[in-house]
Amino acid sequence: MTRGRFITLEGGEGAGKSTQVRDLAAALRAHGLEVVETREPGGSDGAEAIRALLLTGAADRWSPRAEALLFAAARADHIEKTIRPALDRGAWVLSDRFLDSSRAYQGMGELSDADILALHDVGSGGFLPDRTFILTLPEAEAEARANVRDGGEADRIGGRDRAFHQRVAQAFTRFAAEDPVRIRPIDASGDPAQVTARLLEAIRDLLA
Amino acid sequence: MTRGRFITLEGGEGAGKSTQVRDLAAALRAHGLEVVETREPGGSDGAEAIRALLLTGAADRWSPRAEALLFAAARADHIEKTIRPALDRGAWVLSDRFLDSSRAYQGMGELSDADILALHDVGSGGFLPDRTFILTLPEAEAEARANVRDGGEADRIGGRDRAFHQRVAQAFTRFAAEDPVRIRPIDASGDPAQVTARLLEAIRDLLA
Repeated sequence: MTRGRFITLEGGEGAGKSTQVRDLAAALRAHGLEVVETREPGGSDGAEAIRALLLTGAADRWSPRAEALLFAAARADHIEKTIRPALDRGAWVLSDRFLDSSRAYQGMGELSDADILALHDVGSGGFLPDRTFILTLPEAEAEARANVRDGGEADRIGGRDRAFHQRVAQAFTRFAAEDPVRIRPIDASGDPAQVTARLLEAIRDLLA
Repeated sequence: MTRGRFITLEGGEGAGKSTQVRDLAAALRAHGLEVVETREPGGSDGAEAIRALLLTGAADRWSPRAEALLFAAARADHIEKTIRPALDRGAWVLSDRFLDSSRAYQGMGELSDADILALHDVGSGGFLPDRTFILTLPEAEAEARANVRDGGEADRIGGRDRAFHQRVAQAFTRFAAEDPVRIRPIDASGDPAQVTARLLEAIRDLLA
């Protein structure tokens, strides 16, 4: 039996990651593949318990360093309990966020990219996806989508947050430039079906 | 104001660590010092929440790697929220277990000592105690104490577990040999008051 493939979708909020995980999974199932849809943080019982710690309580409940360790712990459990077993039985795994989100969100400030990669080395042996797509939108479209999602409240993405979202986008762009074989930007504008078609085209070699 | 001192007590189960934290704290308070008694895993709100994840559920709930990351996350929170603020205000901090327990218990198998130290570097900047005491008992006395604690059920420390406890004891001995300035074995046999007296003698230079 052939080992399955592990594909991750990354990008800022509102880029359409969860929609594309769902629609790409449906398209791959139509090819006769078993597909596991998952997400981070979470994706296994232990990782979901850690997710609850990460996403509840005060916003400053965890320092950046404790938070990065919790994300890495959740990822180690997710890989061991969900991702590796699926790949070993020949399934494809599609994850809404993975390591590169930790690199973009936790590895840009008090912690470095090297710190995040060191945690991933110890926690998960440096396990990487077969391919990672950065869903990329023009800044104006990203803001418009985020505003719709927030019910028109623009403040979350305005002011200081706008600079934050720009830094995240720049980080993803840098990762893609540094590892162009694994990490590829995908134009996420337009109709979701068009984006799914772009993703299918970009994994055609893995399907062969 | 003088920064406080951070003292950790380490050793196998039944060596008397929690008793000595309590009694040494009382002796230091009699010297007019503020003393914070703490323990790992735990010692801060966030670390106690992680402790609950670590100590509940099936014994194999967490892989060794996820477990090591969770211990490191709890330690980062413990240091940031409890230990550093206490030291900064001049208090002494006594902890029942700390980094060296992770090294002895998690760094001997699938993970290496270097892995554990790498997690501590990223999580807590490699923050170390001023002094660490390994409470050391002759093997027969350690077993007798553990049997009493278990209500006479010897199986936890017998069979394969005996080899495990020997490996832990050997690991602590090795750490003390590698870093004799920070890490010192203390004879934990005899009356608890005698052990406290040995500890006080061994920190006399820090009290001066």
